[in-house]
Amino acid sequence: MLELRLVQGSLLKKVMESIKDLVNDANFDCSATGFSLQAMDSSHVALVSLLLRSEGFEHYRCDRNISMGMNLNNMSKMLKCAGNDDIITLKADDGSDTVTFMFESPTQDKIADFEMKLMDIDSEHLGIPEAEYHAIVRMPSSEFARICKDLSSIGDTVVISVTKEGVKFSTRGDIGTANVVCRQNTTVDKPEEATIIEMNEPVSLTFALRYMNSFTKATPLSNTVTISLSSELPVVVEYKIAEMGYIRFYLAPKIEEDDEENKS
Amino acid sequence: MLELRLVQGSLLKKVMESIKDLVNDANFDCSATGFSLQAMDSSHVALVSLLLRSEGFEHYRCDRNISMGMNLNNMSKMLKCAGNDDIITLKADDGSDTVTFMFESPTQDKIADFEMKLMDIDSEHLGIPEAEYHAIVRMPSSEFARICKDLSSIGDTVVISVTKEGVKFSTRGDIGTANVVCRQNTTVDKPEEATIIEMNEPVSLTFALRYMNSFTKATPLSNTVTISLSSELPVVVEYKIAEMGYIRFYLAPKIEEDDEENKS
Amino acid sequence: MLELRLVQGSLLKKVMESIKDLVNDANFDCSATGFSLQAMDSSHVALVSLLLRSEGFEHYRCDRNISMGMNLNNMSKMLKCAGNDDIITLKADDGSDTVTFMFESPTQDKIADFEMKLMDIDSEHLGIPEAEYHAIVRMPSSEFARICKDLSSIGDTVVISVTKEGVKFSTRGDIGTANVVCRQNTTVDKPEEATIIEMNEPVSLTFALRYMNSFTKATPLSNTVTISLSSELPVVVEYKIAEMGYIRFYLAPKIEEDDEENKS
Repeated sequence: MLELRLVQGSLLKKVMESIKDLVNDANFDCSATGFSLQAMDSSHVALVSLLLRSEGFEHYRCDRNISMGMNLNNMSKMLKCAGNDDIITLKADDGSDTVTFMFESPTQDKIADFEMKLMDIDSEHLGIPEAEYHAIVRMPSSEFARICKDLSSIGDTVVISVTKEGVKFSTRGDIGTANVVCRQNTTVDKPEEATIIEMNEPVSLTFALRYMNSFTKATPLSNTVTISLSSELPVVVEYKIAEMGYIRFYLAPKIEEDDEENKS
Repeated sequence: MLELRLVQGSLLKKVMESIKDLVNDANFDCSATGFSLQAMDSSHVALVSLLLRSEGFEHYRCDRNISMGMNLNNMSKMLKCAGNDDIITLKADDGSDTVTFMFESPTQDKIADFEMKLMDIDSEHLGIPEAEYHAIVRMPSSEFARICKDLSSIGDTVVISVTKEGVKFSTRGDIGTANVVCRQNTTVDKPEEATIIEMNEPVSLTFALRYMNSFTKATPLSNTVTISLSSELPVVVEYKIAEMGYIRFYLAPKIEEDDEENKS
Repeated sequence: MLELRLVQGSLLKKVMESIKDLVNDANFDCSATGFSLQAMDSSHVALVSLLLRSEGFEHYRCDRNISMGMNLNNMSKMLKCAGNDDIITLKADDGSDTVTFMFESPTQDKIADFEMKLMDIDSEHLGIPEAEYHAIVRMPSSEFARICKDLSSIGDTVVISVTKEGVKFSTRGDIGTANVVCRQNTTVDKPEEATIIEMNEPVSLTFALRYMNSFTKATPLSNTVTISLSSELPVVVEYKIAEMGYIRFYLAPKIEEDDEENKS
């Protein structure tokens, strides 16, 4: 028997909006510690990792570990029917092949339940080891989203370069080139407006903007985003989910164009 | 000679928006008592009935009964040119084959007149007798619109079931099932937020969501909607037009799927 | 060396939005007095003339006259990446075949530079002599935009007729006719809401609404629009750019339908 009651239901709606374009079908894993998901995007390039810890739920009952395969597009259709102030409860009986989403309006005058078929999905859970990164950038999530969107109108890839002074996002396309520099800045009115750079060594890596733009769909989940960069590891783009967990996106850097040109 | 002056011109714009997708061409009937329309939708499944009583107009002159055939899409194009605060006057000379819509801005600095050709439309006026209904539900119109829209993302039909406790809207589709229950609730801050159920006997009827969604285009006309249900009659979905009249939509219930399955 | 620094960068964004649909490629001319553009629209029917005087820039350095050919669509893509509060600096080195747009956020925390290739564009600069007009109408730009848009839903051309009492905009189409009269009105709360008519003689001219609607894309640049009419000259639709200059659109009147009918 599984019963997870989340007072701030809009959070689950936002989680779904942030991953449904990237991932079609995925297993949600429930255990005593929390509700999580790990899935490759449909082209097997990016990895999404979601964690909602049990403490964040008003009520959390999970009698035994269970993995529920869901079509994220269908799940999103159902969650869209929840009001932004609704309490959402996720329920599944042991051995059942369905999951139920219950939506309660704050006044309790309107109660909806949506039942969805579960799917069998093959998936292997990748262990993601804690790693050391060359540089970690924390910045306003809306700023990062704006930059990725802006650069997409010029080119297809973004070079992210970190120095002590700041982080530079660059692109190049048929119509020209673009560089956006965000300076380290900790003297701001609100902490979430800060741009903070922790750097062990300078790093400059190239990524497909298509994926970065996909990741920024998680912007409504958090005011800040953390970008962890290392030349030997996939970048991690992390959005914290207040008091509950996180959503993390992993993407391998592209071999830079200059390198490719040198080879050929 | 016909001359109808409506100070709250936005009301006529809203009326047009609420029926133009359902009905292509229709006769507007003017008499001393009011301005009305009765028309089947283009697939001859639903019926629309509109009444704007003469008392609601600032000036109402209708020398003799007249029936004016109009293309609602064209009429809507013209009314869209009226500002939301404009006074709208509808004029037709006796024997003329055109109608004129005059729009006056509140300051009288801008005056527009739009002239449209009338059409000959065959139509028979159905007498709609007053009837007894098994159940009458009054609820916030925005809530009803939201439910119809939400359920459309799951299925094609809605079962509306009324008991003393509340009204339940259910659907079923490829991706799962959905039920939304609205409880009788009269202890609200604003009367228009109440959900009030008058029931003589429980009733459960199935309707095409496509039409229900069309009807909800009238939502801007009224804060509340009244749904009158009987197993022997078409449902009536009514939006009152403040101090002037109403717009009513009639739709025959579908034979429920379960019944059909039993037959085959 | 060219370096033009415009504190109110949103102004350049608005200029670009107002002409990019009309003109594909154009030469921007810089001299000591200002930054200007003159270009025919792509179908060679309308003429656009833009002037931003040097005094309007915070910093204006133009060592020698220079003409820079730009693709307006690409330039617009780049300027869209500037924030509405950003300071925009346009830079070009002597003999360079590129131009750089630099965007600085108000806090200086984010600095972007976008480099675009220049083009060689053949163009001849038309001398536009000062002229006497039969009538000059000044009216709220949003009102003019609304009228052009409204009439487009009925017909393809607009007849603009000016008398001492006001200005009339008329059209005719398959579904009917429309006339909108704006009365001379100088007793308004805010000067920009006035409709002021200076008339030497009555005038009535026909124009393609397609172009008028294009011109109204400049509406965000100014609260008022000035329409100068003469039966022997193209109409001038002018939007003043506060303390900097103007954008002017020129369009030749159409031979009126009645005249054409008389000929045939």
